[in-house]
Amino acid sequence: MKITFPDGKVIEVQKEKSLYEAFKRNGIFLTASCGGKGTCGKCKVRILEGDVRVDNYGKLTEQERKKGVVLACQSYAEGDISVEIPIESMLTIGDKIAISKTRDLFELLKSYKAGMSPLISRLQLTLPPPTLDDNISDLERLKRALDEKGLNLSFPFDFMKGLADGLRQHGWDVFLCYQKESKEALSVEAPVEKPCYYGLAVDIGTTTVVCYLIDLCDGRVVDVGSTYNSQMRFGDDVITRIVNATEGGELNALRRAVVADINDLVEPMTQTHNIDPEEIESVVISGNTTMVHLFWGLNPAYIREEPYIPTANTFPVWKAKDAGIRIRRDAPVYTVPCVASYVGGDIVSGVIATKMHTKEEIALFMDIGTNGEIVIGNKDWLMTAACSAGPCFEGGGIKNGMRATKGAIEAVKIDRETLEPEIKVIGDAAPIGICGSGMIDAITEMFLAGIIDQRGKFVPEAKTDRIREGEDGLEYVIYSGDGRDIVLTQVDLENIVRAKAAIYAGVSLLLKEVGFPFEMIERVYIAGGFGNYIDVEKAIIMGMLPDIPRERFRFMGNTSVAGAYLCLLSEDMRREAERVASMMTYMELSVKGSYMDEFMSAMFLPHTDMEQFPNVKGMLEENGRI
Amino acid sequence: MKITFPDGKVIEVQKEKSLYEAFKRNGIFLTASCGGKGTCGKCKVRILEGDVRVDNYGKLTEQERKKGVVLACQSYAEGDISVEIPIESMLTIGDKIAISKTRDLFELLKSYKAGMSPLISRLQLTLPPPTLDDNISDLERLKRALDEKGLNLSFPFDFMKGLADGLRQHGWDVFLCYQKESKEALSVEAPVEKPCYYGLAVDIGTTTVVCYLIDLCDGRVVDVGSTYNSQMRFGDDVITRIVNATEGGELNALRRAVVADINDLVEPMTQTHNIDPEEIESVVISGNTTMVHLFWGLNPAYIREEPYIPTANTFPVWKAKDAGIRIRRDAPVYTVPCVASYVGGDIVSGVIATKMHTKEEIALFMDIGTNGEIVIGNKDWLMTAACSAGPCFEGGGIKNGMRATKGAIEAVKIDRETLEPEIKVIGDAAPIGICGSGMIDAITEMFLAGIIDQRGKFVPEAKTDRIREGEDGLEYVIYSGDGRDIVLTQVDLENIVRAKAAIYAGVSLLLKEVGFPFEMIERVYIAGGFGNYIDVEKAIIMGMLPDIPRERFRFMGNTSVAGAYLCLLSEDMRREAERVASMMTYMELSVKGSYMDEFMSAMFLPHTDMEQFPNVKGMLEENGRI
Repeated sequence: MKITFPDGKVIEVQKEKSLYEAFKRNGIFLTASCGGKGTCGKCKVRILEGDVRVDNYGKLTEQERKKGVVLACQSYAEGDISVEIPIESMLTIGDKIAISKTRDLFELLKSYKAGMSPLISRLQLTLPPPTLDDNISDLERLKRALDEKGLNLSFPFDFMKGLADGLRQHGWDVFLCYQKESKEALSVEAPVEKPCYYGLAVDIGTTTVVCYLIDLCDGRVVDVGSTYNSQMRFGDDVITRIVNATEGGELNALRRAVVADINDLVEPMTQTHNIDPEEIESVVISGNTTMVHLFWGLNPAYIREEPYIPTANTFPVWKAKDAGIRIRRDAPVYTVPCVASYVGGDIVSGVIATKMHTKEEIALFMDIGTNGEIVIGNKDWLMTAACSAGPCFEGGGIKNGMRATKGAIEAVKIDRETLEPEIKVIGDAAPIGICGSGMIDAITEMFLAGIIDQRGKFVPEAKTDRIREGEDGLEYVIYSGDGRDIVLTQVDLENIVRAKAAIYAGVSLLLKEVGFPFEMIERVYIAGGFGNYIDVEKAIIMGMLPDIPRERFRFMGNTSVAGAYLCLLSEDMRREAERVASMMTYMELSVKGSYMDEFMSAMFLPHTDMEQFPNVKGMLEENGRI
Repeated sequence: MKITFPDGKVIEVQKEKSLYEAFKRNGIFLTASCGGKGTCGKCKVRILEGDVRVDNYGKLTEQERKKGVVLACQSYAEGDISVEIPIESMLTIGDKIAISKTRDLFELLKSYKAGMSPLISRLQLTLPPPTLDDNISDLERLKRALDEKGLNLSFPFDFMKGLADGLRQHGWDVFLCYQKESKEALSVEAPVEKPCYYGLAVDIGTTTVVCYLIDLCDGRVVDVGSTYNSQMRFGDDVITRIVNATEGGELNALRRAVVADINDLVEPMTQTHNIDPEEIESVVISGNTTMVHLFWGLNPAYIREEPYIPTANTFPVWKAKDAGIRIRRDAPVYTVPCVASYVGGDIVSGVIATKMHTKEEIALFMDIGTNGEIVIGNKDWLMTAACSAGPCFEGGGIKNGMRATKGAIEAVKIDRETLEPEIKVIGDAAPIGICGSGMIDAITEMFLAGIIDQRGKFVPEAKTDRIREGEDGLEYVIYSGDGRDIVLTQVDLENIVRAKAAIYAGVSLLLKEVGFPFEMIERVYIAGGFGNYIDVEKAIIMGMLPDIPRERFRFMGNTSVAGAYLCLLSEDMRREAERVASMMTYMELSVKGSYMDEFMSAMFLPHTDMEQFPNVKGMLEENGRI
C-alpha cells in the first residue's frame, strides 16, 4: 500500500506495520516519548484521504478526531492513503548536533604524542616457498616466520580458511593482518603500496547515534552521519529501556535497533565514498553503560537494581560479526571502558577529549543530558558521579518541550517592565515548542522579571495577561499565534527547577566529598549537544552552573565521539582510556543521605545558600530582586 | 513417492533424487566406487514394479536390462516403485569394524600415568556478592577472583551473555567452565555434586567414521557408533576427493557430508542414553590429513600437488559451532596433530596407542588401507612414510572385490593336487565377493599350488577347469554357484601384486634409509580394520609383510579412535600427541628415485631378492616351488 504526502512524496507500507513504524522505515521519525504505546500523544498525524484502522485514539480531542488526526503509532493503513505530518510531530536531526572538526580531532591526537596504531596491525612477511626438503605446513611456515619476529599469535578458524590460497596467490610475499592486543591473526593479504583501510568511531547516545567514518592511514574524517537512536520506541531514557529489555523481554530487539541504526548510517557513507564495506576493519563504540550493554545484547537488569552492577565496565575486544555490524566480519570492535553503571565510556571519552586528567589544574567536566554525569579532578585524581536530571532539557515532561531542532524556541528575553517576551527560534521558523536552552533562558528571565519567585512559583503580584490559568494551573505564555500557544506551566517550572537542582546538587556534593570549594575549579568543560548552546550567565543565575568566573567555562561538543576517534586510531589512547577509567572513583549519589539535603537546598533560584552564588547575589540585590 | 522393498519396508523419495541418493538418505548404502557417476557399475538394483527414468545404463548387459536391473545412481523414480537390492550391491557396516574395548582404552590411559583433564576444566568459585561499597562489575569481580587463583583468561562474546544471570542464579557460588589450554572462559554454571559431562572421540577414516561417546568423568565408553563416510559419493580415495573438493568446487559439500555423518551418529546415541546434546562438551578428531582438512573445510588442493603441503599439521582448538557439530556450541574441538600431507593424526594416534615411542625396542607400525602408512622407530626416533597401496584390499579395482562385510570370502585354501579351493565366508552367507584378507589368501594359495608364478601370472601347466578365459583374459574361479561366479582375473592379480609391492617397498626403503635390517624390528603393529583379519603367514609368503618371526606381529584394531580417546580425556596425552607428531620425521617416498627400484623388486612373490625372505625361501624350496 502507498502513503502519499502533500509534497507529492510516496512511500510503501505493509499492512501489519503501524504508520509510526512505516514512517520510521522510510527515514521519517516522529516524536514518541512513550515508545509507540499510544500514551504520550505526540505522534499525531492527519489522514487526508483513505481508510485507516485506529486501535486507540489516546487523549485526542473530539475536534482533532473530526479533523482526521490520529496517533501514528496506533493507526494502520487499510489501503492507499494520503497523510499530513504536523511539524510538531516531526523528530528531525537538527543542525545542532555538534560535529567536531577533523582538524581538531587530529590535532588532539597529535597533542597526546600518541602513535597511529589502529586495532588491526599489518606485518610484511616474505616466506620461503615450500620445497620437498622444507615441506612444513602453511601454518607452521607462517609461525616460523612470526617466531623470528618474536610474534606469538593465535589462529582463529576464520583465519585458516583463506590461508593456503592467500599465501600462494600473493607468491608467499604477504601482509599478515593481525590484532596486536588480542594476539590474533586475521588474514593474509596482498602487500599494497598505498593501503586503504577505514574505521568507525561511534557514539551511541541515548537519543542520537553519531558515526564517523575515519581513514585509518591518515586519521582523516571521511564522513559523518547521525541519526536518532531508534531504541527510542522502547522509551526515552535508559531506565525505561532497561525495563523494556528485561521485564519486557525486548533485549534483542533493543540490540537490533541500535545496530540497524549504525548499519543504516554506514551503508550510504560507503556508497558516497565508493568504499567497500570490507575495507572498514575496526570500530570503536563509546556510550553510556546501558547503551553499551544494549549494543552488545548484555542483560542490563542489574544496572538498575541496587547496588547497580553492570555486567562489565571494561569489555574485551569482540568482532563486528558478534555485534552484527555489516563490515569486515572479523573487524575488531573496541568498547571505550565504562566506570560504573551510570558513568560510561562516553564520560571516559569526555575526559580524554578534554585532557583534564593530564593537567595540574582542578577541572569540572559536565555532560548534561537526560543523565547528568560529572567528573572532577586533575592529573592526580578523578571523582565522578551521575545525577538523574530527567528528560526535561530534551523536551520530555514539559508541556511544549521539544528537542533543539527547527522551530524550537532556543532563547528568551523578558522585558522587566512590560513582562513581554522576545524569542529566538531555531531555523528562523514559526515556533513550535521550547528546547532546553530556551527553558533556562525563560525561567531565569521570569525570575529576574519578577514573574516567579525563588521557589519557581508564580508571583501573584506580577501583572500581565501572559500569566493565565491553564489546564495544569498557572502558566506563562511565551508565544501565541495561529491558535497554538507555547507556554511554561507551573508544573513545567517545577520540573525544570528539579532538573537543575539535581545537577547542581551532584556537583556540589562531589566537591564537598573531595573537600574543594567551587572557586578552586579552574576550568569547567561542558559536553553534549545541549551543552553547546546554553547561556552560561543565565544557567548560573538559575543555579544550574556554579557561580565562578565565566571565562572558565568551555563548550566541548560531542566529546564521546572524539574519544572514540582517539581510541580508533591509537593503541596508546586505548591504554589511556583504560587508565582513565580505572583512575576514576565513582560515587553513588543516590544512596548518600546528604544528597537529598543538597538537592533540597538547590530547589531555589539560584540556591537557598546565596553565599554559594556571590556574584548572582550581588546582581539580584542590585536589581532589588532579593 | 514411495519405494517398497520385498520385505515390506517402505521409504519416501523425492523426484529429483536418484535412487542411490534416496537410499542413502534412508540409511541404505550401496556400493559405488565411482561416486555415483554411472561408471563403476556396482550400484545395481532391480525394479520389480513401477516406472523409472534411467539416464544411463552403463555397462549393464542386455540380459540384466531385460530383468529390470538398473544402476541406482542413474535412475529416478517416476512414481511409486518396488525395488530389490541384490546383496552384492549393498554396502553394509560389517561386524568386523574393530571396536576397541572400554577397559583396554582406560587401561591404556592409566598405563601412561596421564591425568584426567578433558578440554574443559571447571573451577569452583565463591564470589562475594556486590554491595554499594564493592560495586565493581560482574566481569571485574570474576577477574579479581581468578587473579587470586593465578588464572588469566580471555572472555569471548558468547561467555559474556550469560554472565550476569549466571552469577546471580547460582548465588555467586559457581563453577567457572573454561578451556585451560586456550585460556578462554566458556560459562558459569551451577555447582554440581555429581557432574555429567560427555565427549566424542571421532575417527574420520576415508571409508568409515567411528564415533565413541565417552563419559568425561570416569573415562567410560558410553556408546559407539560407526557409519560409512558419506564423502564416498565424491570418490573412494583421498585423491579423488581432493580433486572433487578443489576442481569440482565441492569442498563445502564434502565438509557437510562428514559433519552430517558425525551428527547422525551422535543423535541416536544421545537419545538412547538420555543425554542432552548440550552435555557433550568436547570433541577430539583423529583422521588422515586430507580427512581433517575436509572436516574443517580447509582447501586440500596443495596436499596433492608437489611439494605436498597441507594448510596445517597442528590445528588450533576451534569450536563445535565452527565445525557444525550439533552439541554444546562452544565445545572445544581438538584435532590430533598430523605429520605431513600423507601421514595424519590417525597415525600419530596409532603411535600413542601402541606406545612404540616409549620403548627401547625398534618397532614397525603399519596402517594398511587405501593408503598404507608406516612408522619405524623407538623412544628416541620415529620415521614415517606413506605409500599408495590403492583401493584393491578394500575391494576397489578388483572384479569381484568387496569390503570385509557379510558375504565376503575372507579366507581361501587351495588343494595342492586338485587345485580346488575351499573358502570361508563372513557371516556364513552365500559368497558374493572377495575381500582383502581373502585376496591375500587366494593369491598366496594360488602361488603355492602352482596356479600362478612368482610374477603373479597364470602358469600354462596348471591343469584345472577353474582356470578359464574370461572377459579380461585368464581367470581363476574361486566360487561358482547360482550363475554367479567369483573369480580373480589376471588383471586382479596384477593389482594385488602392485598393492603389496607398494607397501613392502615403503617399509623396505624406510628401513634402508635408517640403516636397519628387517630382523632388527622387534615388534610389528598392524592397525586398521583390514589389518585385524589377515593371515600373517600368507601375507609374508606373498611378500607384503617382512619375513621375521611371526610372534613379533600384533593386531591393534582401530588405533585412530584409541588415540582420540586418550587425547579427549587428558591434557598430558594431547601434549604427548603433539610431541610424537613433532618427533616423527616424514619421508616423501614418491620423489625418491630408489622407491621405484624397491617397488619393481617387490613385484614378485614374495620378492626378486629371496634373501629378504629366508624362511619363505626355505619353505618354497622344500615344496619345490622354486
